[in-house]
Amino acid sequence: MSKGVISKDEDYSQWFNDLIIKSDMAEYSPVRGCMIIKPYGYSIWEKIQAQLDKMFKETGHQNAYFPLLIPKSFFSKEASHVEGFAKECAVVTHYRLKNDGNGNIVVDEEAKLEEELIIRPTSETIIWNTYRGWIQSYRDLPILVNQWANVMRWEMRTRLFLRTSEFLWQEGHTAHATAEEAVAETEQMLDVYAEFAENWMALPVVKGRKTANERFAGALDTYCIEALMQDGKALQAGTSHFLGQNFAKAFDVKFTTRDNKQDFVWATSWGVSTRLIGALIMAHSDDAGLVLPPKLAPIQVVIVPIYKHPEELDAISEYVKGLTKELRSKDVTVKFDNRDTHRPGAKFAEYELKGVPLRVAIGSRDMQNGTVELARRDTKTKETVQQDGLAAHITALLEEIQTNIYTKASTFRAENTTEVDTYEEFKRMLDEQPGFISAHWDGTSETEQKIKDETKATIRCIPLNNKQEEGKCILTGNPSTQRVLFARAY
Amino acid sequence: MSKGVISKDEDYSQWFNDLIIKSDMAEYSPVRGCMIIKPYGYSIWEKIQAQLDKMFKETGHQNAYFPLLIPKSFFSKEASHVEGFAKECAVVTHYRLKNDGNGNIVVDEEAKLEEELIIRPTSETIIWNTYRGWIQSYRDLPILVNQWANVMRWEMRTRLFLRTSEFLWQEGHTAHATAEEAVAETEQMLDVYAEFAENWMALPVVKGRKTANERFAGALDTYCIEALMQDGKALQAGTSHFLGQNFAKAFDVKFTTRDNKQDFVWATSWGVSTRLIGALIMAHSDDAGLVLPPKLAPIQVVIVPIYKHPEELDAISEYVKGLTKELRSKDVTVKFDNRDTHRPGAKFAEYELKGVPLRVAIGSRDMQNGTVELARRDTKTKETVQQDGLAAHITALLEEIQTNIYTKASTFRAENTTEVDTYEEFKRMLDEQPGFISAHWDGTSETEQKIKDETKATIRCIPLNNKQEEGKCILTGNPSTQRVLFARAY
Repeated sequence: MSKGVISKDEDYSQWFNDLIIKSDMAEYSPVRGCMIIKPYGYSIWEKIQAQLDKMFKETGHQNAYFPLLIPKSFFSKEASHVEGFAKECAVVTHYRLKNDGNGNIVVDEEAKLEEELIIRPTSETIIWNTYRGWIQSYRDLPILVNQWANVMRWEMRTRLFLRTSEFLWQEGHTAHATAEEAVAETEQMLDVYAEFAENWMALPVVKGRKTANERFAGALDTYCIEALMQDGKALQAGTSHFLGQNFAKAFDVKFTTRDNKQDFVWATSWGVSTRLIGALIMAHSDDAGLVLPPKLAPIQVVIVPIYKHPEELDAISEYVKGLTKELRSKDVTVKFDNRDTHRPGAKFAEYELKGVPLRVAIGSRDMQNGTVELARRDTKTKETVQQDGLAAHITALLEEIQTNIYTKASTFRAENTTEVDTYEEFKRMLDEQPGFISAHWDGTSETEQKIKDETKATIRCIPLNNKQEEGKCILTGNPSTQRVLFARAY
Repeated sequence: MSKGVISKDEDYSQWFNDLIIKSDMAEYSPVRGCMIIKPYGYSIWEKIQAQLDKMFKETGHQNAYFPLLIPKSFFSKEASHVEGFAKECAVVTHYRLKNDGNGNIVVDEEAKLEEELIIRPTSETIIWNTYRGWIQSYRDLPILVNQWANVMRWEMRTRLFLRTSEFLWQEGHTAHATAEEAVAETEQMLDVYAEFAENWMALPVVKGRKTANERFAGALDTYCIEALMQDGKALQAGTSHFLGQNFAKAFDVKFTTRDNKQDFVWATSWGVSTRLIGALIMAHSDDAGLVLPPKLAPIQVVIVPIYKHPEELDAISEYVKGLTKELRSKDVTVKFDNRDTHRPGAKFAEYELKGVPLRVAIGSRDMQNGTVELARRDTKTKETVQQDGLAAHITALLEEIQTNIYTKASTFRAENTTEVDTYEEFKRMLDEQPGFISAHWDGTSETEQKIKDETKATIRCIPLNNKQEEGKCILTGNPSTQRVLFARAY
């Protein structure tokens, strides 16, 4: 256990919170439920952004920016949408403060807005109101737009990264001429998210569709990627929605089809948020601190000199200069920590806490022997290796670490995914070995709700390409044609 | 004059607005004074961001993210700061909507906040409240943090990009152990802005300091870069503030110095915004449309095929494939516009309007002759050149265009900067040949205010490294030691 971080077996929630605070990723702000993302945490978000943005552009999307504030009347136009978000939105009512004459700054009641404005919890309404002006004909379609933005949902229970009142995210909003094209887009973006989660976050995910109960407010179909955390709870890491013509109808967005008819436009939206950083931490880290996959680590390699006399440091620094240059030319992010205010042991602990994948230690004896000591964060193993060919060895190791972290998470998920056939077994598993539970369900919202009320487990998704098999619902015994994935979730 | 764009001599304001709308950069939103930045406009912002972010990181800064909402009490702590921003801020008072039972969505009065929250117009207050927890000793300094964010100022008169209620910007907030170090940071960031404006935006700027009247609310000293637009008005393109210990005192941010004393921390802040896009448009464009410097153009080269029969297009496309590949390998952004729905002339007009620096047209005769036709947007000149060595020729031309746009703006500024010595002449110049006016001023706020009231001209800045010379104030005749730069401004 690292200093100040509780063991995850003792208190998983506290462990998660401690890790974030101690590793300098983020902290709570004085504004209820909002967080301050500190440079170390933000640099992970920058890496996530850079890669996703690249993938969005490769699939033909462009970025744009829509207003933060949404008039209440727009917000109310799509009935199920407003139903879903009304309970948790921040409302702007005035546009001026004033000095009350006694030196107090107060809201100026004379500057009351005619119509209240909502801070966007998501932007479908303002965007579809805009698309009405952009779309006349099938020639204007598809529109493939994404926005990187902050959004606000007044959550009652908040947790750093996982659920905060304000969070950063991207929201794609696309418009299409046919339902088929919109569904294909929805599925394509789910694939992009899954590829990102698996190849960059080293996080295995299940791709699936949500049940009606768990759908996005205003969607006909919600696709999701679901990941398993180390405490056996599921985490929804990204969603992609097929919105049908709901928003086009609410905002009167019609187009002339190829055969010269009028039709409403088909829509999708899809998003991931700073929640991904929460998933990253929860999935891989241990009691000693963060474990970051090299592809998203702000620092991939840290070099720590071990010395007593300044002259020794000079020789080491000279060598490190060459090594650093070589590593940087291979796009490896390196930090040489030559601070004389901290002892090597303190530095080791710091970078362990911060999840730096690879540590290189070099002392005078190493310099004589032409060696260095390499320590891996993921396996906590050390080895002494030759300086000759070190840069190539390091890049290979970073790839190995990326793979190993993924494999470990994959194995964990496999060990914690169980098929059950009775409700007794279902409840017992949830208590004794929580994880994904694959079980038959009769397809009704009532059954789903009852299971949720009794066990706190929800249907995370109906996996795509699910095997069809005859079975009986664990609760009602009614016939079922496929298993669905249950879990308690974040 | 391009279709739908008025001539800039006829109505400069309307020309500016038309250009933005017709070139598909942005449009107004239904939310008062807020804009929608469309993909073409946003891609310029992405290029601005990418380059500035690189320059910030090269000077040791890291990004972070602070909350959108600021408690009113924080906002009020620094007296002159709240004085400056109170009149134009959006206030959040409630956190929930509800259905009133008659099907209307209304604000839920039971969900009223105990303390109102302000949407950040700038983040000094929330950030300095946070820095109190980050800084104990001189060892924690400097803190060099930047944030990319949206901010909101409830402006009464808005113009696309130049002045909108919500805008995108970056705000740097640094903390230092000494005044000298903070001043050096303020000046360094001004230099970064000036370098960016000149080398990337092709926009010559004057670096200077603001007078007390024009300082940022809460600053001891405001540095700025000022540019001249084609209508002879000045535009403030970036500011860098030395905040002294004002915010440290307001938020009680103290540190232990090297000699073990307690002192308040020294602060700077600096920012540029989407306003830069307005400056870019205003400085270089003409009646035919945008003129974009190649370094910030979303498309640097557009290739238009000229053909009658599809077989001709096949041969042209084959050649273009190779050219495009070669140009991309040299980091040139190329678009091949092979749409069969538009005629070449329509395409030429479109890319002229959008300010694409270089157009390549290729027909069957060119294919036979081994040539292409190159058209420059900046000079509106055309030349027929050999296909041999074309990629190298294009990259050289792009550099030449970048330089030429800068030189043109520089010449314009030189021709519209005048030294005057009497108030008569001052007023006459403002009416007859508006531009920068270099004149003596007695150094008092009263004189400055009177000149502003009478002529609408303000002191844009006291240029850095100003020549010292004896003179008399144009208004009062009182003695002065240096000229300052006046202009009417955006």
